[in-house]
Amino acid sequence: MKFHGIIPPVVTPLTDDHELDVASYERSLNRMIEAGVDGLFVLGSSSEVVFCTDERRRQIVETAMRVADGRVPVLVGVIDTSTPRVLEHVRVAEELGADAIVATAPFYAIVGQKEVERHFRLIHEATDLPIFAYDLPQCVHIKLQGDMLVRLGVDGVLAGVKDSSGDDVSFRYLTMANDLAGHPLQVFTGHEVVVDGAYLSGADGSVPGLANVNPDLYVEQWKAYQAGDWDRVRELQTQAARLMRITSVTRGEFGFAAGVGAFKTALNLMGVFDSAQMPEPVLPLEGENRVAIAQVLKQESLL
Amino acid sequence: MKFHGIIPPVVTPLTDDHELDVASYERSLNRMIEAGVDGLFVLGSSSEVVFCTDERRRQIVETAMRVADGRVPVLVGVIDTSTPRVLEHVRVAEELGADAIVATAPFYAIVGQKEVERHFRLIHEATDLPIFAYDLPQCVHIKLQGDMLVRLGVDGVLAGVKDSSGDDVSFRYLTMANDLAGHPLQVFTGHEVVVDGAYLSGADGSVPGLANVNPDLYVEQWKAYQAGDWDRVRELQTQAARLMRITSVTRGEFGFAAGVGAFKTALNLMGVFDSAQMPEPVLPLEGENRVAIAQVLKQESLL
Amino acid sequence: MKFHGIIPPVVTPLTDDHELDVASYERSLNRMIEAGVDGLFVLGSSSEVVFCTDERRRQIVETAMRVADGRVPVLVGVIDTSTPRVLEHVRVAEELGADAIVATAPFYAIVGQKEVERHFRLIHEATDLPIFAYDLPQCVHIKLQGDMLVRLGVDGVLAGVKDSSGDDVSFRYLTMANDLAGHPLQVFTGHEVVVDGAYLSGADGSVPGLANVNPDLYVEQWKAYQAGDWDRVRELQTQAARLMRITSVTRGEFGFAAGVGAFKTALNLMGVFDSAQMPEPVLPLEGENRVAIAQVLKQESLL
Amino acid sequence: MKFHGIIPPVVTPLTDDHELDVASYERSLNRMIEAGVDGLFVLGSSSEVVFCTDERRRQIVETAMRVADGRVPVLVGVIDTSTPRVLEHVRVAEELGADAIVATAPFYAIVGQKEVERHFRLIHEATDLPIFAYDLPQCVHIKLQGDMLVRLGVDGVLAGVKDSSGDDVSFRYLTMANDLAGHPLQVFTGHEVVVDGAYLSGADGSVPGLANVNPDLYVEQWKAYQAGDWDRVRELQTQAARLMRITSVTRGEFGFAAGVGAFKTALNLMGVFDSAQMPEPVLPLEGENRVAIAQVLKQESLL
Repeated sequence: MKFHGIIPPVVTPLTDDHELDVASYERSLNRMIEAGVDGLFVLGSSSEVVFCTDERRRQIVETAMRVADGRVPVLVGVIDTSTPRVLEHVRVAEELGADAIVATAPFYAIVGQKEVERHFRLIHEATDLPIFAYDLPQCVHIKLQGDMLVRLGVDGVLAGVKDSSGDDVSFRYLTMANDLAGHPLQVFTGHEVVVDGAYLSGADGSVPGLANVNPDLYVEQWKAYQAGDWDRVRELQTQAARLMRITSVTRGEFGFAAGVGAFKTALNLMGVFDSAQMPEPVLPLEGENRVAIAQVLKQESLL
Repeated sequence: MKFHGIIPPVVTPLTDDHELDVASYERSLNRMIEAGVDGLFVLGSSSEVVFCTDERRRQIVETAMRVADGRVPVLVGVIDTSTPRVLEHVRVAEELGADAIVATAPFYAIVGQKEVERHFRLIHEATDLPIFAYDLPQCVHIKLQGDMLVRLGVDGVLAGVKDSSGDDVSFRYLTMANDLAGHPLQVFTGHEVVVDGAYLSGADGSVPGLANVNPDLYVEQWKAYQAGDWDRVRELQTQAARLMRITSVTRGEFGFAAGVGAFKTALNLMGVFDSAQMPEPVLPLEGENRVAIAQVLKQESLL
Repeated sequence: MKFHGIIPPVVTPLTDDHELDVASYERSLNRMIEAGVDGLFVLGSSSEVVFCTDERRRQIVETAMRVADGRVPVLVGVIDTSTPRVLEHVRVAEELGADAIVATAPFYAIVGQKEVERHFRLIHEATDLPIFAYDLPQCVHIKLQGDMLVRLGVDGVLAGVKDSSGDDVSFRYLTMANDLAGHPLQVFTGHEVVVDGAYLSGADGSVPGLANVNPDLYVEQWKAYQAGDWDRVRELQTQAARLMRITSVTRGEFGFAAGVGAFKTALNLMGVFDSAQMPEPVLPLEGENRVAIAQVLKQESLL
Repeated sequence: MKFHGIIPPVVTPLTDDHELDVASYERSLNRMIEAGVDGLFVLGSSSEVVFCTDERRRQIVETAMRVADGRVPVLVGVIDTSTPRVLEHVRVAEELGADAIVATAPFYAIVGQKEVERHFRLIHEATDLPIFAYDLPQCVHIKLQGDMLVRLGVDGVLAGVKDSSGDDVSFRYLTMANDLAGHPLQVFTGHEVVVDGAYLSGADGSVPGLANVNPDLYVEQWKAYQAGDWDRVRELQTQAARLMRITSVTRGEFGFAAGVGAFKTALNLMGVFDSAQMPEPVLPLEGENRVAIAQVLKQESLL
């Protein structure tokens, strides 16, 4: 099986007292599946994976597996600081029936490409699950080199890449090298705003956080791309970019609080989530910031 | 009790098959205690905290507590990506009898100073243990601001700071602001090479990884500082800087592999550790790199 | 007049003794004009502007004006560290008949967006020439903010932007904001490898250094874009990306030496330039590096 | 002759209409010379070198040479983007009688250590004047490596280094390597706040911008250092650090505007400068920011 198309990184709803909000979660998962997404990615950055205790991680995966119920494949993040910790998460992902796992480079400790490569190889030795490499230098502070990724694809270590690096040039070189090697990797872009450019560069799909808010848009864009209708692809991209302003209209916030905070606030305003609660030590967006997000949603006819 | 003086961040010895090497660990802990260090810091970066499973973390702390046996206080790192995960480590540190805990800013998820401040306040709400803030922007990619640290000191949230930021100007401003506020914080430098300058700036102590290799040197330097003998302080600093070359004489390595790798290799060459094994996915230094480190040790009369 | 299409940043040929190689320069300029480029940009980074004395700057512009002879417009870089120095270059550009000028943010001295905005406004007060803002954070270490650029466009200060920032998301937001404001700015991408994506984002043209080596390719790609033939646009982009490997196949070089060095070496190998000489303190590529570039040129049927 | 001691980087006073304010300049130069400084450094970053036209550069040097009149040596910055431009400034410096010249690495164009080394060697080939390397990665975005600096010292290319890099560890390694090589380089720190630490590390002197505001303090600190009175050295450092707050008490400003802007404002408030005018595109500090600086000056008994 080859993964492709729209695989949203699932945002995790919390209750006001920081429990997993199962009802909201089910609502959101079903909403995306019914919109026609091609898979779900849980326990990525947008799922607040690094804010989760092991127990919370397990809860998030179990619920997603139960709701998905085979309708779409579920990719599970095994993101953690180093190989020994990641391998523990791999065991759980296997146990819970994940269809694939997603791993970043090690982080916090400063390592080089050779340690990163060994990290992925050690994960592969420990599991038969398809492995996606998650390229996210903003969070892990090392870029995954294209040569290494393709080599790991050729060697059967990696099944694919989620590229959230924001480096469109290296993305193009990656898809070209991947094609030259026989396309061993399914290459996804992790961006919301220039997904059309990624498709032009040959992406096999997209993992846009914004698809939690508007899954229909990204599903339609994917179909337009499959049909070769570039004008429509581009038009839908402009719509998505306008909607993405929910992450920049707030004041006094940036990073995770502004990004995932905006997604949660939008989903809360739209009635999908019962709360916009954020994991500690991050506070939910409030007051003027909620108003600003509501305005964007209205302008985009989502409210 | 006020912490002060030399508190080495303890390097963790591994067996060749990646188990905790308890015998080597005991040898190294005793060697530092007998050299006269004023405390031990376990589960910091040098203890390879982010490479440890929860079980390994527990093992490292339990062994250190047992060996220290009240002779010196033991500070325990509760380093992890976010508040919920840190709070789990705090529970274990309390259970095992830690004398203080050490926490960094959250990492991976991009947060700002307000989330960092809330993080430390939430930890303080959850424990009565003295809390040290660990300023390590190279690993967590955010600098702890001096104003915030002093405010948290005044509010009784923080007992001290370990500054490994490499920013000597901000360190000076921190000690000045701390003094102006009545010295609520015990301020330690986390560096090896300009500890003398940190003492001149008013540091209450030092947390040098290199003290694993040569604890006597740093203990003697601390005493010379207490005696006001600046010529001796400076002379010993030059010796330490020469020894620190073990972390830069290797080739093809950098970051954790070169730094902690050199400490482990030196301790192995000196007979303190039975192996220079590193945690996955990092490999131990070998061949020419071991030779280069041995040469430095010989030049410094440690071999 | 609105600038649009392919405006190569002209590479400057030197003789072995570091004089301007006028014969090679004429050959290269004519080659690009005859290939159908829509303009020429001299005294940009690729023209080695910051390596030029005032006299050399003048020589480069005079020669370009003479060769262009009105066949295509000539944009002239007035790049320098601060407003007073830039204004001197503006005087010379006016005197020599430039069709437009191109300015970066101030550099070396650390300034903020308000100083950058004032810089462009002061240049506008001093000249009637159309002004292009050159966004090049890799060299000037500050990103030009889209809001500011559009505001300067609306106010008639800027005629356009050359975006070499490598940030495709901000580029998309810039073109969207520019359209919303009535398209006051002509927006060019300064990249070689994802020009197709920039066209999809609504770019009015491209300023690719690689067009010195293969102007036909970029001219054809622009025409395919004008015709809405996205498959051809993309196909030509893949060709360009393959050719761009001349800047990465060398060893022991990076930055200006690898980039402009590769362009000069390719032009030398192809017989357009008589020498691959570089400005001091940079040395020309030699030996294996020339061989590696020649191989790429052969693979791409340019040799 | 060996340069040593306190060599302030001279701040350049401007009239309100952006001319060189010769009367204020003379007053400030004489004030520093009479305070006992060991030299003057003109056309450095604090002299706003990169804001100067060639004519303004000449004016600044001529005036300084005339006022100094042999009482102290004058070091002249030849700072510019590349070798050819620097060599033009070297000619002028020689013509005007400079005692030494000061050069940074090339900037704007991205180069490596080998180009930087060649840059300094080419300057040396072109002049008999003593050359100081100015290590200022914040502005030129490349760090001068200690090994290279010492090698250039041993080879007679460099007479010294002004280290404004803010990296106290590399500074210590530099002084150690320099001593090991027979002390070919006179090594100065370019900082204001941890000059005492630099002395402990073996600095031959200091180039503090703040000495424009309070030259007596730094001269006295240098003498205390020469006398081995570390307590006094440290005490004076604390005074200097308190005064340095003039660069951080302002709001809405940073970089050059906050730093040199504060020095000019202080000198204006103290009656040394007739205006706090800044070079375009930077505006002078005003309103609340002037009040904040005046308060610091009062607290430090300079007003």
